[in-house]
Formats: sequence, structure tokens, C-alpha cells
Amino acid sequence: MSKLYYTVTLIDCYINLGIMENFRKESDLLGELNVPVNAYYGVQTQRAINNFKISGQLLSSYPQFIRGLAFVKKAAAKTNYELGLLDENMYFNIAEVCNEIINGELHEQFPVDMIQGGAGTSINMNANEVIANRVLEKLGKNKGQYEFCSPNDHINLSQSTNDAYPTAIKMGLLQMNIILVEKLEKIVEAFREKGKEFQDVIKMGRTQLQDAVPMTLGREFEAFAATLEEDISKLNNNASLFVEVNMGATAIGTGLNAPVGYAALCAKNLAQITGFPVVSAPDLVEATPDTGSYVIYSSSMKRLAVKLSKICNDLRLLSSGPRAGLSEINLPPMQPGSSIMPGKVNPVIPEVVNQVCFKVFGNDLTVTFAAEAGQLQLNVMEPVLSHAIMENIHFLCNALDTLRERCVVGITANREVCLNMVKHSIGIVTALNPYIGYKHSTQIAKEALETGKSVYNLVLEKGILSQEKLDEILDPRNMLKPHNK
Amino acid sequence: MSKLYYTVTLIDCYINLGIMENFRKESDLLGELNVPVNAYYGVQTQRAINNFKISGQLLSSYPQFIRGLAFVKKAAAKTNYELGLLDENMYFNIAEVCNEIINGELHEQFPVDMIQGGAGTSINMNANEVIANRVLEKLGKNKGQYEFCSPNDHINLSQSTNDAYPTAIKMGLLQMNIILVEKLEKIVEAFREKGKEFQDVIKMGRTQLQDAVPMTLGREFEAFAATLEEDISKLNNNASLFVEVNMGATAIGTGLNAPVGYAALCAKNLAQITGFPVVSAPDLVEATPDTGSYVIYSSSMKRLAVKLSKICNDLRLLSSGPRAGLSEINLPPMQPGSSIMPGKVNPVIPEVVNQVCFKVFGNDLTVTFAAEAGQLQLNVMEPVLSHAIMENIHFLCNALDTLRERCVVGITANREVCLNMVKHSIGIVTALNPYIGYKHSTQIAKEALETGKSVYNLVLEKGILSQEKLDEILDPRNMLKPHNK
Amino acid sequence: MSKLYYTVTLIDCYINLGIMENFRKESDLLGELNVPVNAYYGVQTQRAINNFKISGQLLSSYPQFIRGLAFVKKAAAKTNYELGLLDENMYFNIAEVCNEIINGELHEQFPVDMIQGGAGTSINMNANEVIANRVLEKLGKNKGQYEFCSPNDHINLSQSTNDAYPTAIKMGLLQMNIILVEKLEKIVEAFREKGKEFQDVIKMGRTQLQDAVPMTLGREFEAFAATLEEDISKLNNNASLFVEVNMGATAIGTGLNAPVGYAALCAKNLAQITGFPVVSAPDLVEATPDTGSYVIYSSSMKRLAVKLSKICNDLRLLSSGPRAGLSEINLPPMQPGSSIMPGKVNPVIPEVVNQVCFKVFGNDLTVTFAAEAGQLQLNVMEPVLSHAIMENIHFLCNALDTLRERCVVGITANREVCLNMVKHSIGIVTALNPYIGYKHSTQIAKEALETGKSVYNLVLEKGILSQEKLDEILDPRNMLKPHNK
Amino acid sequence: MSKLYYTVTLIDCYINLGIMENFRKESDLLGELNVPVNAYYGVQTQRAINNFKISGQLLSSYPQFIRGLAFVKKAAAKTNYELGLLDENMYFNIAEVCNEIINGELHEQFPVDMIQGGAGTSINMNANEVIANRVLEKLGKNKGQYEFCSPNDHINLSQSTNDAYPTAIKMGLLQMNIILVEKLEKIVEAFREKGKEFQDVIKMGRTQLQDAVPMTLGREFEAFAATLEEDISKLNNNASLFVEVNMGATAIGTGLNAPVGYAALCAKNLAQITGFPVVSAPDLVEATPDTGSYVIYSSSMKRLAVKLSKICNDLRLLSSGPRAGLSEINLPPMQPGSSIMPGKVNPVIPEVVNQVCFKVFGNDLTVTFAAEAGQLQLNVMEPVLSHAIMENIHFLCNALDTLRERCVVGITANREVCLNMVKHSIGIVTALNPYIGYKHSTQIAKEALETGKSVYNLVLEKGILSQEKLDEILDPRNMLKPHNK
Repeated sequence: MSKLYYTVTLIDCYINLGIMENFRKESDLLGELNVPVNAYYGVQTQRAINNFKISGQLLSSYPQFIRGLAFVKKAAAKTNYELGLLDENMYFNIAEVCNEIINGELHEQFPVDMIQGGAGTSINMNANEVIANRVLEKLGKNKGQYEFCSPNDHINLSQSTNDAYPTAIKMGLLQMNIILVEKLEKIVEAFREKGKEFQDVIKMGRTQLQDAVPMTLGREFEAFAATLEEDISKLNNNASLFVEVNMGATAIGTGLNAPVGYAALCAKNLAQITGFPVVSAPDLVEATPDTGSYVIYSSSMKRLAVKLSKICNDLRLLSSGPRAGLSEINLPPMQPGSSIMPGKVNPVIPEVVNQVCFKVFGNDLTVTFAAEAGQLQLNVMEPVLSHAIMENIHFLCNALDTLRERCVVGITANREVCLNMVKHSIGIVTALNPYIGYKHSTQIAKEALETGKSVYNLVLEKGILSQEKLDEILDPRNMLKPHNK
Repeated sequence: MSKLYYTVTLIDCYINLGIMENFRKESDLLGELNVPVNAYYGVQTQRAINNFKISGQLLSSYPQFIRGLAFVKKAAAKTNYELGLLDENMYFNIAEVCNEIINGELHEQFPVDMIQGGAGTSINMNANEVIANRVLEKLGKNKGQYEFCSPNDHINLSQSTNDAYPTAIKMGLLQMNIILVEKLEKIVEAFREKGKEFQDVIKMGRTQLQDAVPMTLGREFEAFAATLEEDISKLNNNASLFVEVNMGATAIGTGLNAPVGYAALCAKNLAQITGFPVVSAPDLVEATPDTGSYVIYSSSMKRLAVKLSKICNDLRLLSSGPRAGLSEINLPPMQPGSSIMPGKVNPVIPEVVNQVCFKVFGNDLTVTFAAEAGQLQLNVMEPVLSHAIMENIHFLCNALDTLRERCVVGITANREVCLNMVKHSIGIVTALNPYIGYKHSTQIAKEALETGKSVYNLVLEKGILSQEKLDEILDPRNMLKPHNK
Repeated sequence: MSKLYYTVTLIDCYINLGIMENFRKESDLLGELNVPVNAYYGVQTQRAINNFKISGQLLSSYPQFIRGLAFVKKAAAKTNYELGLLDENMYFNIAEVCNEIINGELHEQFPVDMIQGGAGTSINMNANEVIANRVLEKLGKNKGQYEFCSPNDHINLSQSTNDAYPTAIKMGLLQMNIILVEKLEKIVEAFREKGKEFQDVIKMGRTQLQDAVPMTLGREFEAFAATLEEDISKLNNNASLFVEVNMGATAIGTGLNAPVGYAALCAKNLAQITGFPVVSAPDLVEATPDTGSYVIYSSSMKRLAVKLSKICNDLRLLSSGPRAGLSEINLPPMQPGSSIMPGKVNPVIPEVVNQVCFKVFGNDLTVTFAAEAGQLQLNVMEPVLSHAIMENIHFLCNALDTLRERCVVGITANREVCLNMVKHSIGIVTALNPYIGYKHSTQIAKEALETGKSVYNLVLEKGILSQEKLDEILDPRNMLKPHNK
Repeated sequence: MSKLYYTVTLIDCYINLGIMENFRKESDLLGELNVPVNAYYGVQTQRAINNFKISGQLLSSYPQFIRGLAFVKKAAAKTNYELGLLDENMYFNIAEVCNEIINGELHEQFPVDMIQGGAGTSINMNANEVIANRVLEKLGKNKGQYEFCSPNDHINLSQSTNDAYPTAIKMGLLQMNIILVEKLEKIVEAFREKGKEFQDVIKMGRTQLQDAVPMTLGREFEAFAATLEEDISKLNNNASLFVEVNMGATAIGTGLNAPVGYAALCAKNLAQITGFPVVSAPDLVEATPDTGSYVIYSSSMKRLAVKLSKICNDLRLLSSGPRAGLSEINLPPMQPGSSIMPGKVNPVIPEVVNQVCFKVFGNDLTVTFAAEAGQLQLNVMEPVLSHAIMENIHFLCNALDTLRERCVVGITANREVCLNMVKHSIGIVTALNPYIGYKHSTQIAKEALETGKSVYNLVLEKGILSQEKLDEILDPRNMLKPHNK
């Protein structure tokens, strides 16, 4: 059987496309290595490309994360400049290159696999190398002439992967959370509109899948809006933990090789550059290996997915039929439902959202395992941990838009069906409790079920209440809210 | 707030009940400690009682596990005797005490918490101490006179916790699996009986909660039987991995301090004593920390729970109503369903089984975490790992019996309801495909849905097929199996 | 094989013990049933006892939950009284009985299994029946004379299981969270003390299990304190969601059969009775099936467990040895570690805490499954959901106390071992970066590793820096915090 | 913030690249839709492309799955031909097109998202449409002239998505399992070679991270080989469940619209075409919604991941250092380990494999949720379920190759370090048990630990055994296997 698994890298592409014929040589601790002559990245990125052909899901597909790296490198350079460790020209050049990346340029120069070993060193060095080589270009130097601008000594100055990398992740997640929340707000609005549209559609409520008492379809949809709306603040609150960063921690939180005052100033600069209220963690030794903020943010998404999945289950139940189901609502038909059953239309959009939720649960478990595996002064599993969270945000964003645009806004109600079920229900007997007591009501209910008679007729037959009183009590509209006897 | 969490231990009980006024002193590596004077267990068990007040779920509640320990100790003693390391009298006494335990005696002498540190040392020593002290009693000695029969030098001879403990777990699980499978076989039989009872109840099948094509309720219940039946061999096959034991491995699999030939002979003796086809693992260094058999057996239970949960979901859907649901079947009423809604009866038995399944999924995750956490020559997390599996077996056994006795055997069918849904369905249009093609059938289905007309009338109206032919094609009984055009 | 699985119920006990010879008859929707003549619970509790022999873990073991039920029933009675639905005498009697339960009486009268179907109806009715029968007793009536005080019409007045039950769970969890947080605060304090004690113990920090740069053992322990301390507010914040209750929702949130104004007044009364700042949920239809607060509180415990497990992993790593491990710290010996290896002492306390954490992860998954399975107007899986959370609190409380008392407070440092590792390390080369650059430092490090020479000697040999300067740079005490070149 | 989430589809690419200017119109149940004029897929695929912009992970990246679809369509066509439902020419053309796809052609024509609603209808119709249009081309017709060859009436003849789609998944997984097992066999071999290479490297074994007794590094690596080798048969056994297919089930297992004899003959033809021993499921109603084979195969991969993760944890522990860790082995350096710490080399390859394992655990949970969510006659969650399994196979294949090529084969041993730890250990005291008893050995061990003296010297000092005897007992080489006293 032929080779079936592989990861196509930028270099592979370049070579295949004949775009580049030449390589340049770069060297590091382990010796020399070929790097594509035009690549802005350097030897360490190249080693990561070679080492980690795992998922084929590359950093270059995560623009907010790349921007997070540029934010961090810019803030570090500014801080180094202000503390006298970088000269003005070098700082300006670095800042300019970071701005380019923030504006969406050079992203294809980040071809490392998102699932990688090394605790993010390859991602940090990818950023250091790309920025260094682009600065060299601006300085009129060749790529790789690191004596004029070094990935380690200039771009990574006063930093370690162990502070720069998690800070970049957090800056990336803060951006991504904004997008997720926007999409969540939109679907809340869509459900709320439906809540209004259906406010006078009377239907049976159900508990434990058994007929309960009457309600309106409007309140059911309004509840979908309300339950999702709660998660907006939940997501934002937990995302707000990401503003606490460990810049200045360097290797393990002691701040070795960072100048005095660096941590606080760098946080201030990062806040100014990103617009997020970034602060320095109070205990950098604690903050460096800590993954608590990721765990709880991932849990917030799990909570959102629990609710979304429940809502989609409900939409599928309520639209079951068309003739042998509940058939209270109609979802907009999106595609023929069967290759064999003509005319069948399925609830394909809620179905796909359920599946996204199951993926969210899986990725949340990956986060738990990765977080628990941290050891001593670092959590080396952050690459898969951050990838799992970012994939969840990505999938949820798409799912929310799809559910809103292709399902919620087009839902219609089957008013007659809904009302008929209320009329024939036994559950309305509940309204008699305050008048005849639970025990007598139970007997009426039992007899109705056994004989097939209606509660209304049974009460009249037995002469328990006057028709007038009964009409008032059993009018479904009187059952929709508290009222006094 | 007063102290609310505690674990009641046997000693606490004894003391509270005034049963014992005195303690005896025993000593170990860490010094002296009081042990209840009448207790058969000794100092190391007492330390474990003091150290691990965690779950309150004690070894004494797991009779098969305790029997497993006795099996192992008896087999080891026999092997030591046959290899000349124990004299005949000592062997006979140890074997006799093991038989007592196998027969259910002395189980209250195993009061250690199931969730404990030490990789099972406390459980192994609990067994060693109880057996030693009971032997001492038979020898006319006092408890604690270990110079005549030592927990370590006699009962644990040629063993380590690292071989005796996992072997005892496996002997326990082999017994427990038999019970689980018996209960599974019984519920398969119960579903199969219902399958026969309902074999002529015609109803609509549903895919994606949408009406599909006709089937019988009998085949639906027969499918419940068939899908669960597959798990009998699956459970047995995976339980059969437990017959491979590492007796003779001693500390880390090298067999240090075990005599030549011990591993093979002990396995043979254990097989003879238990009746299980026990064999010695081919690589004892591998076998000692390996938890693969637990992982896959736990997964088998997860698979069973996935199926059980799906079946319970179906039972709840099919019995939804009574008037605003599918109402195809009736579950036997087990208790009034509501404190407010008179006459409401809920599917409480499938509901509790669903919940047991969710617990099974949770415990399976605990197993995964515990198995992954093994390090170097031992997996120290085996106590929680084995407890999670045993709790799952326990809960599933109870759930299977409850579901069968209190639900399945009493289910009845609403034949009229089922048939009416078929008659009014659009899905029967599928049977027209071979005669008029998918595209034309689609048009009929669409028109039926939009107009509310029946498929039958529409085809006649349009003169597409003769009434005679149509009667034959659309007879639901002709849709229940393949047939030629 | 004999019957091995069963749940011992109070009745079984009573019968076995010969305490009761007589039963009284009670009846409900399903007919008559025997109830132990002295039992305060009634027919519906008895049905639940019979129906749910699942886990053997009974409501009676959860005192805060039972108190939660009494809080709810008292608040409801007060509200009903204030709104004119209950007369004064009845209210006073109900309130008095609730106070008895709050004070710890009658808890043995709650013998229903924690894992049950019916969405908590059996638990709600258990409370209704016990209170009704105790009131009857006070009124000089016999048990079961419900015409004078009815479980449904008096105790459950203006309520449904669907509001009273989740509210009781929440009142229970609020109490339990206080206990958990107290224990967490104590262990934070214990780690902090150790942080101070070890503040001048210089040791190597490690990232990715490889030697990094120097730090102090004090900062390492202080970081344990700091990371756990963050979870105090996290737990409290998420527990605070439990103050939002749905009293007045009755069956499905519409408030049918509750008088106007009931919801707000009942919340106010509940706040006054419990001392918690209880409020009424803004959307009762949403609040009734919603399990979002449980999901995120359970996630908070998962986060705590992730951190605890990481800390225990670290304690086990740092104390590995005594001669073939890191051996930086000593855990207090708690029990002999091996049945075969004399003198072996194992880290049994961190080990058991790791295992509790794995159980917490498992129960959190159970919560996720249960929450996702909610359908339409109710989540019927709340019994297993709340049980999983309560079990997690229970286990974590015990684990935190055990870890603190039996491990943390007794930890000692091996100062010499720690210092020697720093002296011989290569990682200290990092401090040279600012003076000779990353590239030159790399060459020194490489040569040190290959030759076995010390970094100090190599730099001197090569004449790169003066001995005086080198002494200053490579003094570990100068590497513990940021400083300027 | 600009639009950041999107799924690039083939059409988007075509349009962007200006490759196609024209569309053709196709129609279905829902009306007309534009399809790219050159696309082989048709209207239903196009609807799926539009509906499901979720993961961006397209069917076109799963060649074995696409081949599985072609296998199924070819087998169905052959069966239809043999049963007289298709004429020879049509059959030959369909078979030829299927062969093209099996040989790797047309795969870019499968651009639907792997995570989708509709229970696979879009994937099945994608195959039906591509094959139909390619047949039309061979017949000299235009794309879309389905009156000459219809996706539904010819390609899908006697099938439903509900049988063709899961059968195609299973044929895909059977192929993928072969690749996974090949890679597993190779790494087993690599560990075994290392086992031989290190067979005389004596080292301390460790249990609970504490020094235990001596062993060889060779046996440790041989155990890695042995434990992984067990999973070869485990994977193959569980994959063998995939040979049971439900072709002939059509919509819900009743076989409606399939001719008599179709199921058995189609299974036979599929076996002949694929070379796999395909059989027809005994109960097609059971088989259609059943996901048991997926659940247990996914569990097998979880088991493999548990073992792989444990091995990688061990490799990282054993290579910890270089000077403040265990340092028993050296992993081949793959890249500089730090952006700040010169000379640091990290175990990046085991680290990335750990992370892949965490992803495997996450996807296994997704499988559990998806499997549990099946309802009535179908499991609509199969798309995410199969995607999760296929992603796991993909990641594990890459991880196994990476671990073998970039880590295992290059591992070297630090023989001196290993031997020294044995010489200075206390654990060797265990070998004295058979001569002086556990209690005396304990005293020696305790004294050695407290005084820092060696076990050897202490025994001599005390005159317990002759030097000659002691030399024999404490020679580590005598501790590596059982031997008689």
C-alpha cells in the first residue's frame, strides 16, 4: 500500500512547484541545515518542520495566534528599548515588522505543526527567526546574517519561550474569544426574535418526555435565548483570566537575564499595543507552568456546547415527523434527506451542531490531560492544549453561524398541531389541584387515561365543578402563569 | 460548621459499640502502633486505616476481590510448599484459612479504603496479616506473635504486592464478570421474548427522528436483544485477558527472591484452585506495570453502557406521551411521576439506567487517567483503577436487573397507534421507487406533504399505477423485507 | 454463585434486626403498599426504595443535601403562609419539623438511593412525607393520616419537584462548597509555611524534566500555595451561581398553581432562612431544565484537581530516591512501602490524592453527559449529576485534609543534595548570555556536556571573562531574580 | 475584526483561480442550484458544500474512505447486475469508474466537510454523483443528464445511505488499520533491538518512583516492545468487526427495495473486490444503527495511546538531566531546546507523542458521545464518529513513525550512571530476605538510610553473613532472575 500519511509543508510545496531551486545554510547547536533561500524562517523552524509531521494543521492557519506572537515581540522590543537594551533603530525596525505581521503579512512563513514537542520553542523561534530575517532585509542584509540581528539576542531579548509563548497564546485567545462571543450574541438575538414570533403559540410542555402542562412555543424559544445569553458573560469572565501574563519570567519565573522592572513595563506596553488590560502575574514562578486559565476557559466552552447540544436535541425532537412525530415546528429544509426515501427532509443543521459539541467535549478532555501532565517548572503540553482550545473556538464559531443562518431564522410553527395536543392532554388536570386536591385530581387523571375520555368531560360528568368554573380553570391561557385561586 | 466528612472504620465501630476495650501493640519499620486486640488484621492494615480516610468504600464490601486475595495466597502457599519453602503443617493451616475466606468468612476484617496510596501494599498486607493471625490462632498462639507465622515471611513468601495484588484483582474481576454476563444474558432473553410478542405489530421506522419506512415493533425489540447479545462474547473475551497473571514477578518482574520454577507452578496452582485457566505472563517485567487488560475490559463495559443508554433513550422516546408523544409502547408504571401533576407516570427505570451509564463513562475515564499515569516498573494508581471497574460492574449488574424486572418484562404495545402512523405516513412512498423512479416518487412525496393528502390517493388520482398494483405495493406487510419487483 | 449485589436499605435492616414487626398500608396512584409502621417516610419513598437498588449510596449520607430540602420546605411553607394559603398552626408545625431536620434529626429517614429515576421526585416526596408524618405526630395523629397534613397538598404546596428539588441541591452545594473552601484555605496556608521554611534552599529548576536554571525550594512551594489559592475565588464565584433558584416555577417554569408573587417572596424567605443571598431566576422556564451552574462548578473542581494532581506529581518526583532519584525533599513516612522490599517507604499520600483527582475527572465527565441529556422542559438526569458533584466534594475534602495533615506539614528538604546539583549544572551557563551572547554560551554548554567539565572552569580556561566577574555572574544567588548587567 | 473563520472549498478555489467561468444548473427536491460546470459532483454535493462549512477537513483528504465508497458502489453494481437489475453495459461502466477512484483518481471531487449533518447522505450522494457523471462522460453524455445514468436509480440502486455509508467507512477503516498496524510492528521491532543492545546494562528498577531492586535496561526496553506488541492483535481483532456489513439493509434494515438475496450476494462481492473477509450482518435492523464496532476499535486505539504515553513518560524520566536528573539514557538531540538556555536539549519527540495520545483520548470521548446519541433506527452522528477515529489513526501513524525514526533508534545508554546507582542503592537489601528475614532486613535498610552507609558494609560490620556469601547474594547479576537459596 502506498504512503498515505504525510504532512505537506511549505518547503515541500516550494520544491514541488519549482519556485525555489536553492537553499541557504544555517547552523545551530546541532550543526548545519538547509533552509529554503527565500524563507524568512530559519534553522530552528526548519528543524521543527522536519521533526513534527503530525497533524498537518499548521500555525499559519491561526492568524490570531500569529498576531499574538507579533504583539509579544513588539512589546518586548519596546520594553528592551525603554530599558536601554536595544538601540532605537533596531527597535523601530522590529516594531515595523511586528506591525506587518499584525496586519496579516508573512503568515505563510509560520509553517510549523500545531502539535509539537518542545513546549512551544519552535513556535517562539519561528517568530524570532521570521522577524529577524525581515529586519535584516530592511537593513539591507542577507537572510541568515544574524550577527546584525539575531533571533535569540535581539528578537528574544529578555525573554524565554516559557514567557513569550504562553503570552502569545493568551493574546491570540483574547482575540478569538471576541469573535466567538459576537457569534453567540447573534444567535441569542435570533432565538429571541423567534420567541417573540411564537409568543401566542400554545403547546404542551413536556418533562421526562411525558406530557406536562401547557406553555407557549414563544417561552420555549425565549428560554433558548436566555440560556445561551448567560454564557456570554461566562466566556468573557473566563477569557479575562488571559490578561494576566508572565512576561519577564524568562526561563522558570525567576526572571534570570531580564532587567529589573522588565515584567511590569512589558505588561504595560503589551496592554497599550493590544488594547487588552494586560497585567503582570503576581507570582511568576507560579504563573509559568500554570494552565488554570486554559482549563476553565475550555470548560466554559464545554458548558456552551452542553447547552447548544441540548437545544439542538430539542429542535430535532420538536420537528420530528412529519406525521409520526411531534411535528410542532418545521426546520427550513436544507437538502434532500435520503438517497432512497423520496421527499424525506432531515434536521441536518442541528445534527451537525450536535456533532461539533461532541468534538468540543473531546477537545476539552484533551485539555484536561494536557494540563494535568505539567511537571515542575513548566507544562510542556501547551501546544496540544492550545490547539484543542483554538480548534474548539473555530468549530463553535462555524457551528453558531451555521445554526443561526441555516436553521433558526427559518423555523416555523405548526400552530394547529400544538393546540390540538393541549386540548387532548391529561396534564391540564394539574390546574384542578388547588380546587379539588392532588388525590382527587389523580383519580380523574387515571380515569381519563384508562377510558380515553377528556379531563373536561370527566369533571362535568362527576359534577365536581360547574361548567363555568371548569371553563375558566381549564382554559390553557390561564395556565401560562401564576394566578390566585 | 460541624465535621461532616469522615469515614467510619471498623475500629471506630468497635470503639463506639464498646465491643473492645483493649488494644494490642504491633510494630513495623515506623515503630509501634495500637491495633484492636481482637482484630485479625495487624499494624500495616491499621496504618492504612489511619492514612486513607477517603471514600468510605471499603474492601470489605467487595467479596469477590477478597476471595481473589485468598485464592492468590493459597496458590502461593501451595507452590512454596511444593518447592520446599514451607513445611506441610504451615501450608495446611494457610490453605485452611484461605478456604474460610473463600467461603465468605472474615470479610469484615478487610476495612481498608478502596482508594488508597501505596499501589495496593495495604490490601496485600491486610490479607497477609489476617491470614497470619488466623493461622496463629489455629496454632494456639496469640495474635501478633509473628515469629511463629509472619505476614511477610510466610504468607507473602516468594511474593510482592506487585504480583499478588494485581493477580487478586484479576481473580476478583473474573468472578464479577461471570455475574455481569449472567445478568446480561437474562435481559437479552427478556428483550427477545418481547420481540416475539410484538412480531406482528406494524409501525413506522424512524431515521434522524423523521418518519422513514414501516417495520415491526418485534424487530425493534429483537434488535435490542441482538445488540446486547454481542456484548456477552465481547465482555468474556476481554475478561479472558485477566487469566494472564504475573505471580513470580515479585518486586519488578525479575523474580528476585522467588525460587526457580515458581511463576509457572504458581499459575498452575492458581488455575486449579480457581477453576479459571490461569497462565503465567510471558514477560513478567512487562506484565507487572501493564494495565492494558483493565483498560480494554473497562472499554467493553463502556460499549455495553453506550448500547444500554441508547436502548433506554429509545424506550423513553417510544413511550412518550400519553397524548402528546409517540405513544407506541407503554412502560409498566413504577411510581407516581410528579409531586404536582396528578396521574403523571414517568419512565423512571430507563431514566435510572441512563444515569448508571453516565457513571460508567465517568469511571472509564478514571481508568484511562489511572492507566496512563503508570511510571517505570509499576502502576501505582491500580487501587482507583480497580475500584472504578468494580463500581461499574456493581452498578451495571443492578441496572440490568432493575431494567429487566421493573421495565422490560412489563412493556405493552399500542397496536392501533402504531398502525395508524404507518397508514398516514409519507415514507411508504419509498416502495414506489422501483416502479416509478426516485424523481417521480419525490414529487408525489412533496405533494403529499404540502397538501396533506395520502400517498395512496395521489398516485391513484394521477393514474400512475392501477389500484390493484398500488394495493400490493403499499401494503405495509410487503415492505417489511426484500422482495422482487 | 450466590447473590452478591444488593443494596441494604433501612427497611431491610429493620427487618433483619427484628426492630419492626408491623407495617402500615399507604396508597397512591398505583395502589396500596406496605410501609414500615414506624417510618416517617411514606408510600412514595417506599416505592423508590423498591425501585432503585442501584448504588447503595443513600441520601441519608448527605446531610447538607437533606438540610437543603428542609430549608426549601420551610421557605415554601412560610411563603404559603404569608400569601394566605397555609394557616398559622400548620405553618408553625412545618417550620418546626424543618428546623429539626436542619439540626440533624430524622436524617436516617431519607433512605432513597442517590442514583434514581424520576428527576428527583422520590427525593422531594421523601422530604414531603417525612415532614408530613412528623407534623401529624405533633398534631397527635397517626402516621399516614394525610387528610390532616398531606405531603402533596400541604408540604409541597405551590411547588413541584422541578423547582423544590434543584433548589434543595443548590442549598446543599452552597453549604458543601464552604467546607471545601475551608479545607483548601488550610492547605494553601500549609504550603505557604513550607515556602517560608525553604526560602533559602537553592536548587535547580527544571523544564521539560531537563535541568534549567537555579531557583529556591521556597519559591517552588510558595507557587503551590499561590496556584491553589487562585481556586478559592474560582470555586466561590462559581458556587455563587447556585443562589439563583427557580422556586415558583412549579412544573415547567410557567408557575401554574403558584400564587402571584410566590417566586420572589419564596426566594426572599429562603435567603433569610439560609443566610445565602438567594434570588429568583429571571426566566423560570429557562432556569428549570438548566444545568449550567452545575457544569461550571464541576469544572471548577476539575480545575482544582488538575492543579492538585500536578502538585502531587511534583512531590513524588522531588522525593524520588532515596539514592537513585532526585531526592530533593523527604515526605514524612506514613507506612512501610513494600511487602518484599525492606526499608522502602513510598509517597503514599500524594499517590492517593492523585487517584482522587482521577475520580474527580471521571465524575466531571458524568456531569457533562448528564447535563447534555436534558430534554425539553426538564433535565431528568439531575440525580446522578448532583451525586457526582457531591461525591467529588466529599472526596476532595478528604484528600485535602489527608494531604495537608499526613504529608505537607512534615516535608523536609535535603539542602546539600539541592545545592550540589546546582553547582554541577550546565544550566547556569544561561547567566552568561547577556555578557557573551547566546551563540558563545551554546558552545560552552556543548563543551561542558561533552567533556564533563564545569562551565566555570571552561570559561576561565578560555579566558573569556575574569574570575572576579565570573564569580559574580555564576553565583546562584544572583540568578534568582532579574538584575541589570 | 475581519472575517477569520471560513472553509475553503473546491468551488471557492476554482472561482478564485478563474479556472471555471460557468456553472450548470441541477435540481432536486428543493429546487435548482448552480454546480460548477466541470465538477463531477452534482446538486446534492453542492448543497452539502454550502451547508457544512464547519471543520475545513474534507473527505478528499481521506483516500481510504473514498476508496471504501468506490468498493461499495462497485460491489452494489455487480450485485444488481447479477440479480438482473442493471444491464451489462451500465455495470461495466460503473465498475470501471469505481476502479479509477480505487486507483486514486477523482479524489479532489469529494470536497464535503467530514463533520456534517444528514447521517452521511451527503457523502453517499457525493459518491453517487461523481460516479454517475463520470459514467455519463464515458457514455458521451453531458454532466447532469441523469436520465441516462442517475445517482439515485443506478448508482445507489438497492442501497440507502444507511447501508452504503457505514459499509464504506468500515472498508476505509480496514485499510487504515493495516497501515497503523504496520507502523506499530516497526516500532515494536525498534524497541526490541534496543532491548538486545542494552541487555547487559544493569540499573535500578523503580516502583512508585522509589528505588526498588536491580534489573537491566535491556529488559526495560524489551518490555516496551512486549507491551506494544500485544496491541497488534488487539487492533486487528477489533478491526475484524468491521467486516460485518449491512449492505441490503436499505433504509432501516428491513431491506425494502432490495431484491431477494441481495444482502448475502453483495457481501460476497464486496469480499471478492476488497480482499477482506466481508460478511453480511445476521440482523440488519440491529446492524444499521449499531456503532459497537467503532466504540471498541476506538477503545483499542485508546489502549495503545495509554501505553505509548506511559512509554514516553518513562523515556522522558530516564533521560532527565543531564546533571540533575536520572540520566540513565540519552535521547538523540533533535533541535536546540531553548530560546534562552544555551545547550539545553529537550525530549521533544516523546513530548509530541504524549500530546498525540491526549488527542486520541479526546477523540475517543467524541466517539463515545456520538455513539450514545444514536436514536431509534439510525445513528445520525456517524460523520463525527468516523472522523474522530480516522483522525486518531492518522495522528497515531505519524506519531509512531516519528517516535521510531527520530527517537527510539538513536537512544544510547549511560552505563556508568546506571551501575553506580545500583551500587549505592539500599534496595539490594531485598536479596537478604531469604537469608535473614524481612524484619532484620528492614533494620539494615533503616540504618543504611539514616547513616548513609552501604548495605554491604553494614551486614559485614554486624557479622551477619560471611563476606563470601554476601558477595554472592549482593552481586546485582544474581538479582536479575529467580534463583534458589
